[in-house]
Amino acid sequence: MPHIQLPEGLPGIRGAMAFRPETAKPLNELVEVLLHSENSLTPGERELIATYVSYLNDCYYCQTIHGAIAAASLNDDEELVKRVKADFQHADISDKLKALLVIAGKVQKGGKNVTADDVGQARSLGATDREIHDTVLIAAAFCMYNRYVDGLGTVQPRDEAMYRERGKRVARDGYVTVSKEYLPAEAATR
Amino acid sequence: MPHIQLPEGLPGIRGAMAFRPETAKPLNELVEVLLHSENSLTPGERELIATYVSYLNDCYYCQTIHGAIAAASLNDDEELVKRVKADFQHADISDKLKALLVIAGKVQKGGKNVTADDVGQARSLGATDREIHDTVLIAAAFCMYNRYVDGLGTVQPRDEAMYRERGKRVARDGYVTVSKEYLPAEAATR
Repeated sequence: MPHIQLPEGLPGIRGAMAFRPETAKPLNELVEVLLHSENSLTPGERELIATYVSYLNDCYYCQTIHGAIAAASLNDDEELVKRVKADFQHADISDKLKALLVIAGKVQKGGKNVTADDVGQARSLGATDREIHDTVLIAAAFCMYNRYVDGLGTVQPRDEAMYRERGKRVARDGYVTVSKEYLPAEAATR
Repeated sequence: MPHIQLPEGLPGIRGAMAFRPETAKPLNELVEVLLHSENSLTPGERELIATYVSYLNDCYYCQTIHGAIAAASLNDDEELVKRVKADFQHADISDKLKALLVIAGKVQKGGKNVTADDVGQARSLGATDREIHDTVLIAAAFCMYNRYVDGLGTVQPRDEAMYRERGKRVARDGYVTVSKEYLPAEAATR
C-alpha cells in the first residue's frame, strides 16, 4: 500500500505523477529529452542505461518498464535486456556502450566514483562529451526516479504483459505523449 | 578539472546546465516547483531538506549553495543550517520538520528504507500527504543533482562569499529567473 493516498489504478510513477502534476511536468520533460528525443545514442542504448541503473537500485517498476521500452526499441530482444542487467560486459552491445555502463554504475554509487580513466576509456571507444554528459545525467536521474517510486511505496504490479504493452507504446510515442492519458492537459504539454 | 569540456567560469551545476540547455530547462523547472514555488512548507524548510540530503551525499557545491539559500530564507541564520546538517534532532526546528528529515535521510539511502512508521510519525506531527510527497521527491531529486554535479567533476570553488551572495539572489528571485543569466533564453523560460 502506498505511504500516501495516491490515485488508484495508476501503478508506479504514474500514480505519483497524477498526485502532483506540477512536478510531473518537468519529470516527464526530463525523461523525454534524456531517453526519447533525438540523440547520437539510440533510444535502445539510453533505455539500457536507465534499466541497468534501476536494476542496481532494485526498483522493480522502473527496471521492468524501462527494460520493456528498451526491448521494444531493440527488435523485441528481451534476452539482451536481461543479459545487460546480469552481466553487461558479456552482452552483445558495443564496447562504447559497455564503457558508458561502467560510468553509469559508478554514478549510481555516487558521483565522485567516476574517474578520469573511466571517461578516458569511453572517449577512446568513440563516446563524445555529450554522450558522456547524458550517461551521467541518465544514471543520476534514475537514482531520483527509482527513489521517488520506491520511497512513496507505489503499487508495482507483477504483470509482465502490462509492462510489455506499455513499453511498446512509450517506445513509439514518447513519455510526454503517453503521459497525457493520466495527467491534466496543462501538465502534459511541453 | 571537469571530466568533459564545460563552459568556463560557471561553477557546479551551472557549467553542466550551460553545456546542455535542453536538460537544464526541466532541471530548473523541477527545482523551482520543489523549493521555491508556493507550498505549505516554507522555502527555508525545503532548502534545509535539500541541504541535508546534499550533505549526506557529500556534494560540496550543492550543500553549500543550498545551505546559503536556506540561510537567506531563515533570517541569515547560518548556525541553524550547520546544526541541521550535523545533528538535526537537536536543532531549533519543528518536530514535523525533524520527522520529514528522517524520511529524507531514508530516501537518500534508497527509497525502500522509508517505512509506514516513518510516514505515520510525520503525519502525527501535522505533515500532509503533499508535504510527505514533496519531501520524498526533494530528497530523491537531490540524489540526482548531487550525482550530476560530482559525476561530471564540475568546478566547485571554496569561496563562501560567492555562495552567500548567490544564495540571497536565488532565495529572492528563484531558480528559473536566476538561470537566465547563463542559459539561452529558450531554456530559461517556463
